[in-house]
Amino acid sequence: MKLATYKDGSRDGQLVVVSRDLSTAHYATGIADKLQQALDDWGFISPQLQDLYETLNNGKARHAFPFDSRQCMAPLPRAYQWADGSAYINHVELVRAARKSDVPGTFYADPLMYQGGSDDFLGANDDVPVPKEAYGIDFEAEIAVITGDVRMMSTPEQALDGIRLVMLANDVSLRNLIPDELAKGFGFFQSKPATAFSPVAVTLDELGESWDKGRVHLTLQSTWNGRKVGMCEAGPEMTFHFGQLIAHICKTRNVRAGSIVGSGTVSNKGVTGADGKTTWPKGYSCIAEKRAIETIQDGKPTTEFMKFHDTIRIEMKGLDGQSVFGAIDQEIVEAK
Amino acid sequence: MKLATYKDGSRDGQLVVVSRDLSTAHYATGIADKLQQALDDWGFISPQLQDLYETLNNGKARHAFPFDSRQCMAPLPRAYQWADGSAYINHVELVRAARKSDVPGTFYADPLMYQGGSDDFLGANDDVPVPKEAYGIDFEAEIAVITGDVRMMSTPEQALDGIRLVMLANDVSLRNLIPDELAKGFGFFQSKPATAFSPVAVTLDELGESWDKGRVHLTLQSTWNGRKVGMCEAGPEMTFHFGQLIAHICKTRNVRAGSIVGSGTVSNKGVTGADGKTTWPKGYSCIAEKRAIETIQDGKPTTEFMKFHDTIRIEMKGLDGQSVFGAIDQEIVEAK
Repeated sequence: MKLATYKDGSRDGQLVVVSRDLSTAHYATGIADKLQQALDDWGFISPQLQDLYETLNNGKARHAFPFDSRQCMAPLPRAYQWADGSAYINHVELVRAARKSDVPGTFYADPLMYQGGSDDFLGANDDVPVPKEAYGIDFEAEIAVITGDVRMMSTPEQALDGIRLVMLANDVSLRNLIPDELAKGFGFFQSKPATAFSPVAVTLDELGESWDKGRVHLTLQSTWNGRKVGMCEAGPEMTFHFGQLIAHICKTRNVRAGSIVGSGTVSNKGVTGADGKTTWPKGYSCIAEKRAIETIQDGKPTTEFMKFHDTIRIEMKGLDGQSVFGAIDQEIVEAK
Repeated sequence: MKLATYKDGSRDGQLVVVSRDLSTAHYATGIADKLQQALDDWGFISPQLQDLYETLNNGKARHAFPFDSRQCMAPLPRAYQWADGSAYINHVELVRAARKSDVPGTFYADPLMYQGGSDDFLGANDDVPVPKEAYGIDFEAEIAVITGDVRMMSTPEQALDGIRLVMLANDVSLRNLIPDELAKGFGFFQSKPATAFSPVAVTLDELGESWDKGRVHLTLQSTWNGRKVGMCEAGPEMTFHFGQLIAHICKTRNVRAGSIVGSGTVSNKGVTGADGKTTWPKGYSCIAEKRAIETIQDGKPTTEFMKFHDTIRIEMKGLDGQSVFGAIDQEIVEAK
């Protein structure tokens, strides 16, 4: 099933069930008002939501209304955890190669993750407010999952069973704040403003065979100012699957229902031709990666970061060509 | 007023108002069931809680019952944000001196903070489950505040107005996991398991003159296995006050109601005698600091980290000698 959260002026919005084709929706009132409530008691509540979903898909839900992603908050407008991985090692390799630093061998066995702020997420069509262009505004197109309870010391396989929903994320990053911040040694903080999520979050069965053991085998499209810059394959090059990412968190603590875990920037390796030249036909899921490639090839980056009023659209289509999660489609604006 | 959250089998527990002397409590049922609910609508709900608090203190609350901190969850059993500072630069200086690295000059102007996990906090008397003693188990005695909404780009003075409640924290740390984790460059993650908080959180007026512009001028006591190891002054040596810490978060994002912001390990400078020898008469608020001092003075640490079944008690008394927040009093146990 597909779930979304509609704006109603409250902090957590109203849970709605959305039809498979994203054309209609229905309030889940009477079942659960908020998505967190459903996650807290998933075994009891999700079958009721599933029933409503089927009625909606059959065109028989009496109070259905046209679905409008502009009315969406993030599926979880605020969450108890947002832990983001860097599961595509190719991205790490490129960024490090650009600054002439090697990728430590342990990075291939031990996931890199950071803890993000989760008190104030953006809806899929909300503006992205940033104080200054000079901060180096970048998008990061990612896949994210929402978990149920996963116990401390769970294995990656056990952690896979704890995945409830999948969605897309725009992990907005302020690149020019990152070097000084990481040099302080405590990780990202001011360089990661509010993250945005796709209009709907979907259960695993919606992905069909495209979901395979913690990886989504579909293409993540990123369109910057109307120009398609990324058509990245999210499946085969995901070094750590979502079960491994969740198990990484679980090493020393429980993961509780409603935790959001991100994949990090989806990234594909370049292709080296007979002439020895490498190209990246699948494009990029964040500008930093494009700039890293330019630095490796030309000695310096030429693509600039985002400006106020730039737009970014992030979407993923299923094997049937239909949008799975709806599109993240946002404008960067000056924070006032 | 003083607020706590009683265990009731649910994820968020039940909000109770606790008398000033911590002897009695009263359910806030009919006003607000959960502390987050009160924080979400503080202007409307807090005066009603305050009325109940006064009735309780006057011995006139009809359904009052004896307060028992063992029934407490963390005041916020799970939160939308837990951002912990390192506001006592003396602590940073000692830890860095022990590993012969300087404190960068910027650390005196720009707070050091990390984003912590907030989906699964521990109550004040809950056991601390850790998978292995070899992880290097340490306590960290801290002060923490809970905020209302604070807008992006707020000044430290504006941020001070956003502080709703104050409490104590035990930011449990796994020291032997830290070096490898920080070397990865993304900050703490597995080295910071679930944090515990004091039985009650209190409004600023409860601190009277001990609260001065974002600092708590009282002594934080840490007792390890029954031995008092820390009697640290929390006020004068707090390099960055809570308004500055919150404003640091606000540089690029909004801080939303129910965010918890920590001070980092409370730490006091040593005293150098006429013989040129430095001692630390106020003790320490985490073992890592004691070990840093030993390393600086003797070339190596001799105090070992905590073992399973060790206990740690963290408490702060007001000018009247009474416990302000109740005591964090926990046992370290092996996670199963």
